Amino acid sequence: MLTVNGPRLWNSLMEMAKVGATAAGGNCRLALSAEDFAGRALFADWCHQAGMSLDTDAIGNLFARRAGRDPQARPVVMGSHLDTQPAGGRFDGVYGVLAGLEVVRSLNDAGITTDKPLEIAVWTNEEGARFTPAMLGSAAFCGVLPLDKALAMEDAQGISVATALAGHAGSLPLGRPFDAYFELHIEQGPILEQASVPIGVVTGGQAICWLNVRVTGQPAHAGTTPMHLRRDALFAASAMIRQLEQLAEAFAPHGLVTVGQLLIPGSSRNTIPGQVRFTVDLRHHQDAQIAAMEQRTCALLQQVAAQRGLTVDIQPHWFSAATPFDPDCIAAVGQAVTALGYPHREMVSGAGHDAIHLARHCPSSMIFIPCVGGLSHNEAEDALPENICMGADVLLGAVLGRAGG
Amino acid sequence: MLTVNGPRLWNSLMEMAKVGATAAGGNCRLALSAEDFAGRALFADWCHQAGMSLDTDAIGNLFARRAGRDPQARPVVMGSHLDTQPAGGRFDGVYGVLAGLEVVRSLNDAGITTDKPLEIAVWTNEEGARFTPAMLGSAAFCGVLPLDKALAMEDAQGISVATALAGHAGSLPLGRPFDAYFELHIEQGPILEQASVPIGVVTGGQAICWLNVRVTGQPAHAGTTPMHLRRDALFAASAMIRQLEQLAEAFAPHGLVTVGQLLIPGSSRNTIPGQVRFTVDLRHHQDAQIAAMEQRTCALLQQVAAQRGLTVDIQPHWFSAATPFDPDCIAAVGQAVTALGYPHREMVSGAGHDAIHLARHCPSSMIFIPCVGGLSHNEAEDALPENICMGADVLLGAVLGRAGG
Repeated sequence: MLTVNGPRLWNSLMEMAKVGATAAGGNCRLALSAEDFAGRALFADWCHQAGMSLDTDAIGNLFARRAGRDPQARPVVMGSHLDTQPAGGRFDGVYGVLAGLEVVRSLNDAGITTDKPLEIAVWTNEEGARFTPAMLGSAAFCGVLPLDKALAMEDAQGISVATALAGHAGSLPLGRPFDAYFELHIEQGPILEQASVPIGVVTGGQAICWLNVRVTGQPAHAGTTPMHLRRDALFAASAMIRQLEQLAEAFAPHGLVTVGQLLIPGSSRNTIPGQVRFTVDLRHHQDAQIAAMEQRTCALLQQVAAQRGLTVDIQPHWFSAATPFDPDCIAAVGQAVTALGYPHREMVSGAGHDAIHLARHCPSSMIFIPCVGGLSHNEAEDALPENICMGADVLLGAVLGRAGG
Repeated sequence: MLTVNGPRLWNSLMEMAKVGATAAGGNCRLALSAEDFAGRALFADWCHQAGMSLDTDAIGNLFARRAGRDPQARPVVMGSHLDTQPAGGRFDGVYGVLAGLEVVRSLNDAGITTDKPLEIAVWTNEEGARFTPAMLGSAAFCGVLPLDKALAMEDAQGISVATALAGHAGSLPLGRPFDAYFELHIEQGPILEQASVPIGVVTGGQAICWLNVRVTGQPAHAGTTPMHLRRDALFAASAMIRQLEQLAEAFAPHGLVTVGQLLIPGSSRNTIPGQVRFTVDLRHHQDAQIAAMEQRTCALLQQVAAQRGLTVDIQPHWFSAATPFDPDCIAAVGQAVTALGYPHREMVSGAGHDAIHLARHCPSSMIFIPCVGGLSHNEAEDALPENICMGADVLLGAVLGRAGG
């Protein structure tokens, strides 16, 4: 069973981490910044040394290519992104790109040429920290976001993607057909670490439902209003949020419920809140289940409001359907990890990834490894070298299975 | 049974409401503003016409005096304030002052001279809208706030009380002995209106306990963190607030619990709240009971935090002990209202009033009448003419009982 050179991959990760390094041990390579381009240039050097050719498309997505035996075959693509959050870590995205390079280096070492060509994709502006939306490059590639809109997006200084890209965009067509896409990534959550399992076989991305809730009662004086005559919007909202917590239990373990923001407009310490606004974030990997969660949420909130003589207004803010990954790609990952004998479990991706867009373009799936403390988007983001190595071994196995070696 | 001239009192209230009138039908006479002084001047004119003498003390409290048969006797004092909120109503404070004038006018009409002298007090800056603290004039008079500190307080424009008072302060000594103090006021709450009772015999002011609570959990990604691994500070805070609502039930009907402000620092829609801060306002008219409420609050919040593996920090912010009014003054009001045959009930004051300070200086009590919808500190503040008249009848009866006629 072919495996990668773990120390070489780790060293490359640590070399890349010097580009845009922060004092606290993290990385700042904002999309299309000088640091991002320096990171891409380092990656391109390594790819050239590994015998690969490089080209870019109109939104700056960078592709390194290793030829296969069949020049007509569609490429099997690995990848992720090199841009980071302003105070980001050393592994988020970078790992998927450099593990792809390590797969190629290992194939070179073993003298293996695959039937289908291999590519490593570096997607533009995955983080969404400089330009919105996140996953902009893969969205433009997959036709989810029109190219002109993507190029027109501006950062906080009013610099457009088009301006930031000047001299770095190429002529590779958007939406080229791929045979498959595999993205290896740190989990960015605590599940694998808690379970002491090094490999997550990712079966898809969650559906997300965002709601805006406004509870309206009656503002009144905290000292002169008896409890039984109050219509306290915060007491009502608290009862609603308790119900939402129980809703999550009813949809356990796959249903997630978060109230991230809560605001009492014009609040005062000695005034009974007359209005409360809060957000609801519902997640589930099955569309039917998230629809049930949304319906249940609305019913529960209306019920609490009615019991208390208040009104509640619930507005949909955003919805993203579940993204099931391709059964053959999931199976390729499963076969690789089984052959390697590594402990693993199936799971869904809770965060957004370029693979979520790619899944609408070609057969796709993802592989997760644990990150320390589940921490990500943080300069302290960390991963263990042995897990880094095992994840790349699985990527190598899955890609070989798909590309034919 | 002597009663007042209700239409005359109502007309005086409507005349006074023309001074600093707002477009929406309310009043703006900020403390020591031109409008406030115009209101005081109108009141002084009326007092002169009623045969009274006027003088002020060093903090600008204005006293109108009607001599009694015994020049050595301490005065029986009625009063309240003429300053208003920026968008205030026509009755808050003004009613207690002009009802005092109507008592004097009615005694004049009836040819009655009391044994003890009568005074009407107009306390400076009761509202706290221009200068903090509220009830500044009565606090300085009663020695609760040193005069130099009171004079040094500045408004938002940096103008001090001393500057605003220039030419309006007099030489009446602060803390002069009073025989008794009676303050007639709109309830500023819904109790009397809901009970269809025109007169509240006020037995004291509530104790107030203000706490600052900080709940600390763990911020995390809303998509990647399973429910059972979360330490969600808002879910915990909501459970705490539900417990506080039940605490109020345990101390019903006199215990009041309000969470007026709640903040999630650095909140984001798709981040599990790692910290929540909220305020707690506890009220009860008995010191022993508010101490029990505070103790129970701390125990309940600690218990919820412990159950959920979060921490809670509870800091006292402010405490004001209960103010029981004088039994003889309460009895004088009770005898007057009984003699008049008006429906009445005993109650406590939920809002702050000058009488709360005066109660530490001399025998004091208050009389409440309903206000429409319990609304106050609002341009739509309203009271019914028949209730306005009945309240003044009770004041007249209580004052006569105390002053001897």
